[in-house]
Amino acid sequence: MDELIDQLKQFRDERDWQQFHNPKDLALALSIESGELLEAFLWKAPEEADREKVKEELADVFAFALLLADAYDFDVREIVLDKIGKNAKKYPVDKARGTSRKYNEL
Amino acid sequence: MDELIDQLKQFRDERDWQQFHNPKDLALALSIESGELLEAFLWKAPEEADREKVKEELADVFAFALLLADAYDFDVREIVLDKIGKNAKKYPVDKARGTSRKYNEL
Amino acid sequence: MDELIDQLKQFRDERDWQQFHNPKDLALALSIESGELLEAFLWKAPEEADREKVKEELADVFAFALLLADAYDFDVREIVLDKIGKNAKKYPVDKARGTSRKYNEL
Amino acid sequence: MDELIDQLKQFRDERDWQQFHNPKDLALALSIESGELLEAFLWKAPEEADREKVKEELADVFAFALLLADAYDFDVREIVLDKIGKNAKKYPVDKARGTSRKYNEL
Repeated sequence: MDELIDQLKQFRDERDWQQFHNPKDLALALSIESGELLEAFLWKAPEEADREKVKEELADVFAFALLLADAYDFDVREIVLDKIGKNAKKYPVDKARGTSRKYNEL
Repeated sequence: MDELIDQLKQFRDERDWQQFHNPKDLALALSIESGELLEAFLWKAPEEADREKVKEELADVFAFALLLADAYDFDVREIVLDKIGKNAKKYPVDKARGTSRKYNEL
Repeated sequence: MDELIDQLKQFRDERDWQQFHNPKDLALALSIESGELLEAFLWKAPEEADREKVKEELADVFAFALLLADAYDFDVREIVLDKIGKNAKKYPVDKARGTSRKYNEL
Repeated sequence: MDELIDQLKQFRDERDWQQFHNPKDLALALSIESGELLEAFLWKAPEEADREKVKEELADVFAFALLLADAYDFDVREIVLDKIGKNAKKYPVDKARGTSRKYNEL
């Protein structure tokens, strides 16, 4: 993960793009890329998306997510494990098992 | 990264949620979470977002992005490095330096 | 509004596209278009977006929103006025005036 | 449509919210609401979304789309009819009939 962030920052700095990369615009970019990823699935059955398009758009999603994590000095491993811990409380196994309901409807 | 994916899958499987996690709905979930992340920045200057909210929503983005990568058996490191390589060709340093224009407007 | 919906449906039916236009994919299309609209503002000050791009992407947003309203037989005027009424209760003038806080933080 | 825009602006101005409603944040708000609309369809078959949730979120989408149109002084009817005209050229009936392919793949 650290290696990826370093590569992304090197790419950014060679182009002098840090001036554009404030957290708000990074979040916009991430949202735009997740929309492009969705487009791979539009009007299709769940398994019919073009694998290459998914790969490219998902890579863009990771790129902006990693840059945003870096902007806030978040450790990705830590914040994801923290969130899994919180979700385990919101979705206890005995109530959440086999249902897709939201925690406030369990 | 592999550890995170294992933890996410364990969380999912304990709740028998794999039945819902087809690639299309994972892409929807990722897009929904990136919208919730955006909400941390709404009506605000770029640096004014609530750090805790950004942390939680960004963790959700990573969670679904990792599950989607796993569904396609993508190696995250590999697909991001591949994309950086492609972008280096679309955005050559001498043309892209200091500008936020898209590659087709350089 | 009715005229627009009729024109959109005529366009759709001439191409035999109703088969793809289930509500879920219409919501996906709407979300994708709103991402393309966002792209007009990316890395830019709020007033710097390209007017023509905004116009085109916003038109796409309206197109899918109208088709989705039609799929549920919603009257657009009615559902928007209803929502304004609900929001008036969530955001009473004396508490909400001059602040961008969410209703649960007022 | 004009009546709706007037009502939305009255709601906004009673709360002195115009200061927050620059075009970029309106586009963010629209994208966030379209994500909340998507959530009504998550993990579900296309026809299983909760009708009331769809109604409320779609109303929010229209509200911000109308405010954004107003910010640019766009006539909604005109921009949608213009876009239908452009799409008719990108998707000629004889090529687009019965297929969900994008115009650049026809």
